[in-house]
Amino acid sequence: MGFIFILNSGCSKNNSLLKESGTASNTSNPLPSWNETDHKKAIIKFVEKVTKEGSSDFVPVAERIATFDNDGTLWSEQPMYFQFIFTFDRIKAMAPEHPDWKNKQPFKAVLEGDIKTVMECDPALIDDLVMTVSADYTSDEYAKIVKDWIDTAKHPKTGKLYSEMVFQPMLELLAYLRSKGFKTYIVSGGSVDFMRPWAEKVYGIPPEQVIGTSFKMKFEIRNGKPVIVQIPEIFLKDDNAGKPIGIYQYIGRKPIASFGNSDGDLQMMQWTTGGSGLRFALFVHHTDAEREYAYDRNSPYGRFDKALDEANAKGWTVVDMKNDWKFVYPYEMKIGLK
Amino acid sequence: MGFIFILNSGCSKNNSLLKESGTASNTSNPLPSWNETDHKKAIIKFVEKVTKEGSSDFVPVAERIATFDNDGTLWSEQPMYFQFIFTFDRIKAMAPEHPDWKNKQPFKAVLEGDIKTVMECDPALIDDLVMTVSADYTSDEYAKIVKDWIDTAKHPKTGKLYSEMVFQPMLELLAYLRSKGFKTYIVSGGSVDFMRPWAEKVYGIPPEQVIGTSFKMKFEIRNGKPVIVQIPEIFLKDDNAGKPIGIYQYIGRKPIASFGNSDGDLQMMQWTTGGSGLRFALFVHHTDAEREYAYDRNSPYGRFDKALDEANAKGWTVVDMKNDWKFVYPYEMKIGLK
Repeated sequence: MGFIFILNSGCSKNNSLLKESGTASNTSNPLPSWNETDHKKAIIKFVEKVTKEGSSDFVPVAERIATFDNDGTLWSEQPMYFQFIFTFDRIKAMAPEHPDWKNKQPFKAVLEGDIKTVMECDPALIDDLVMTVSADYTSDEYAKIVKDWIDTAKHPKTGKLYSEMVFQPMLELLAYLRSKGFKTYIVSGGSVDFMRPWAEKVYGIPPEQVIGTSFKMKFEIRNGKPVIVQIPEIFLKDDNAGKPIGIYQYIGRKPIASFGNSDGDLQMMQWTTGGSGLRFALFVHHTDAEREYAYDRNSPYGRFDKALDEANAKGWTVVDMKNDWKFVYPYEMKIGLK
Repeated sequence: MGFIFILNSGCSKNNSLLKESGTASNTSNPLPSWNETDHKKAIIKFVEKVTKEGSSDFVPVAERIATFDNDGTLWSEQPMYFQFIFTFDRIKAMAPEHPDWKNKQPFKAVLEGDIKTVMECDPALIDDLVMTVSADYTSDEYAKIVKDWIDTAKHPKTGKLYSEMVFQPMLELLAYLRSKGFKTYIVSGGSVDFMRPWAEKVYGIPPEQVIGTSFKMKFEIRNGKPVIVQIPEIFLKDDNAGKPIGIYQYIGRKPIASFGNSDGDLQMMQWTTGGSGLRFALFVHHTDAEREYAYDRNSPYGRFDKALDEANAKGWTVVDMKNDWKFVYPYEMKIGLK
């Protein structure tokens, strides 16, 4: 069933109204890759309550906003954020035109494959790396670079395309919510220009519903053609408190449901659940070392520590990947794993 | 017919899917307040071409993005931008708590009703006034202030509510485009927080489709409740080149049709028409001194000079309000004017 959702997302570009109203959903069991645990039941109970006309918890369609973190929530984020892997690949590809990088940190460490040194840098320097690989490109040129990478680069552990390492249960959840009139948004610390070129095909989420870290831009006429060109300065840092701020700036409505997996999502959950009426907050807890990765409080990527404590204290839903998910990745279904 | 659209917008909050697919449109004559001129025909011809399946000009629903300037395009902007009138009203209301304003420009001039002096100030000082009246409020508090004003304040010339001074032909155009699968956006130099509280009711445009000048925000916990609070610094100046930049940052797709009325919309039109495939650019030319206002090249608000030249040179549609519009404001229809 999951693959049907994915294929639908990819093929139905001509019919986003249909996709938004979500006619592709399996109504008898909308979340087939979820085991029959309390967490699955909590999701369905919430959705049924807010969509039942006449119920005191009813929420009009226009206000059914659901926001999803990306890294670690919709796809994997180990051994490091996939955008970092992309960035390092780009630094290597661009190095011949930048001979000075050989002697300049953190470029030097990237070129030598010394990831440990890169990661011990000031985080602002890592932002600089991310911005360096996008600066000066027009938005169209950069989208093509991202698309070429996502279509070909392989994950070091699984050997799969990164777009194959999305979570099957979350694809089903996105489709289920859309089938119930929800508008699904990405709200990610990763950058908008890195996600938009493939988010519609992979998640069924159109560019205008992708919020993320973003950079300043300039408008100019190049070769007689108007273009938008990236400037290496942060416009919005869409992480931690930046997430509710991004939601306010871009959506202007409070979500009624939010989905994340790490401390970077905590303020988004506070903002979401701080509204009146029924609200839903769900964290994906990475507990499956065998099928994916197991990490939480001590991970440099997707640290889940303060948010785990607050989720437990407030009774938010914390999904246990190992026990709650029948499949992790779509390809497991195809090859009949589990 | 126009009033039906407005009432629909106001009452169909519970059914945005219906609204987006626009079933309320009058299909036999979708633009009843437009005279049967070439400009009306150009709009309909464009829409028919891009929505006809199999046609070489066909555009999938997901890519049918239409962007509208607000001031002077969807509602009037004389004797000055309505947000300025709101801002001056707020300065007056807030003055008792700020005794220093009596001796500080441009506050002093505002309090004395000396608009000429205010308008001769450095434009950055006027931005400061706009930011002063929104700073420190939570987003919810500020939305209420705006809503209270829009529900009660009256225009100095017509004595009407500002929300009654929207253009009937443009309301019909918004509804017509939505009925054809377009997603309609506001892209305004006015501020997002000033438009969102009423744009859905008045234009049928939900908060997440309102792009405008915006301010930096901070997230904090006030009295145990998470809030978003305005900081008096510009986040996005959504005018001139800021319009295509705002469109890129918020939508991430190029519009296929854009609607404006002044030089501030020129870059948005260049960006829109710079894409491949059939594109449409329309300017509203204020030529009706009797029913509205007549101004263009020399107006301090909505100056239409360079953009008028470029529109003429490139063959973009320039609507002549006096000749092309049967009615200007919705209330004219009600009282049977013309």
